[in-house]
Amino acid sequence: MFIARVRGNVVTTQKVPKMTGKKLLVVDPLRVNEKTRALEPTGRSVIAVDFLDAGVDELVLITQGSSARMTDATSDSPVDCVIIGIIDSVSLSEATIYGKSGK
Amino acid sequence: MFIARVRGNVVTTQKVPKMTGKKLLVVDPLRVNEKTRALEPTGRSVIAVDFLDAGVDELVLITQGSSARMTDATSDSPVDCVIIGIIDSVSLSEATIYGKSGK
Amino acid sequence: MFIARVRGNVVTTQKVPKMTGKKLLVVDPLRVNEKTRALEPTGRSVIAVDFLDAGVDELVLITQGSSARMTDATSDSPVDCVIIGIIDSVSLSEATIYGKSGK
Amino acid sequence: MFIARVRGNVVTTQKVPKMTGKKLLVVDPLRVNEKTRALEPTGRSVIAVDFLDAGVDELVLITQGSSARMTDATSDSPVDCVIIGIIDSVSLSEATIYGKSGK
Amino acid sequence: MFIARVRGNVVTTQKVPKMTGKKLLVVDPLRVNEKTRALEPTGRSVIAVDFLDAGVDELVLITQGSSARMTDATSDSPVDCVIIGIIDSVSLSEATIYGKSGK
Repeated sequence: MFIARVRGNVVTTQKVPKMTGKKLLVVDPLRVNEKTRALEPTGRSVIAVDFLDAGVDELVLITQGSSARMTDATSDSPVDCVIIGIIDSVSLSEATIYGKSGK
Repeated sequence: MFIARVRGNVVTTQKVPKMTGKKLLVVDPLRVNEKTRALEPTGRSVIAVDFLDAGVDELVLITQGSSARMTDATSDSPVDCVIIGIIDSVSLSEATIYGKSGK
Repeated sequence: MFIARVRGNVVTTQKVPKMTGKKLLVVDPLRVNEKTRALEPTGRSVIAVDFLDAGVDELVLITQGSSARMTDATSDSPVDCVIIGIIDSVSLSEATIYGKSGK
Repeated sequence: MFIARVRGNVVTTQKVPKMTGKKLLVVDPLRVNEKTRALEPTGRSVIAVDFLDAGVDELVLITQGSSARMTDATSDSPVDCVIIGIIDSVSLSEATIYGKSGK
Repeated sequence: MFIARVRGNVVTTQKVPKMTGKKLLVVDPLRVNEKTRALEPTGRSVIAVDFLDAGVDELVLITQGSSARMTDATSDSPVDCVIIGIIDSVSLSEATIYGKSGK
């Protein structure tokens, strides 16, 4: 899985029937910078199915590949990326490097 | 999934029987440029099965891997990339960064 | 799928039983250069199973991952890349950028 | 599989039901530097399920993709990376380049 | 599949039960250098299951992903990379660029 930041969304009208009703978000996978120990973008943009109601700028956990079909909402769908959690915090060793506001 | 731009097409006569009748498009996966917030090519070129009748220069949504076999048109085929939607719009936060002409 | 150029071949004597009789080719995946619009190597070298009798320097279409097992010749085999077609032509918009000699 | 170093952990409250009770670690895949022959980070950060109780800074073995669902603890889960072993030692030719303390 | 060079091995004591008795090798995937036509490392290090008794510095053929579970020795295991052959020779066009000693 990867940590990713929600950036925006994608709208499609003409699509495969199994995609009807699926919310699609633009998310940027993140990595830990070795020196600054901060989370930074990897420079990729992935489209993920969201049924956890994630908001823009929130950090989420994404699963890719066939494992993206292992949720009730995505089984048997032509989906290769899904949001499986909204991240509360990320810690390196003892130090918290990300905390969701309000948590 | 990835956003990709349709660039052209590929023709094959000598092929695996299961590929007969499948339209093959050359598509370039895109990413969001962190600074300009525009969509830009990632420098890769992928061949995707198309049965949504996508046109050159349109933005499409592609699914890769085993999930590309989860449509009626591709099940049990040796296909690892399929177009699952034609994109109407892409938004970052509140701003639309791509809108299909006529939408 | 990717467009790839056949470069050569690999010979193995000591191997998993299911690989017996499978022809293995060295292929280089290609991409479209954004500026020159020509096909160019991506700098990777992949080994693909070939049962379409592809020749050196021909362009072929390769499928990767579990989809590579979706042909009669590769089902249930430990194979993650197979040639599914020999390419006749590649076009970008209206222009043909590759045509197989004799086609 | 990849060798990876455990860096920290991720906490999610709002998540897919199948993820309940799964410990999530931030791990950095490593590679062998060709010149120094030391293990060094690849610059990626992956989130892996851990049920072997790995500790920060330990080296672990991670499996990705559908194979990450082939453990009793992860079967049928939307999980694409799992820790399958805690590494005691890594050797190149005759020389040990990593040994777990206490081993 | 990829051509890879065997570099060394990994030892794990604390591991998933299905990994017991599996020999794990450190292998470096190789590619063909476009100019020198020699095989060179790609800069990655992968851990592969070996049951063909490959030796250090030998070239092997590796399969990745779900296809790595398609051997008798790896079925149903959390394994995403396996050695499926020991390479005797690699040829580009008419020229042999690698030949195993003694072959």
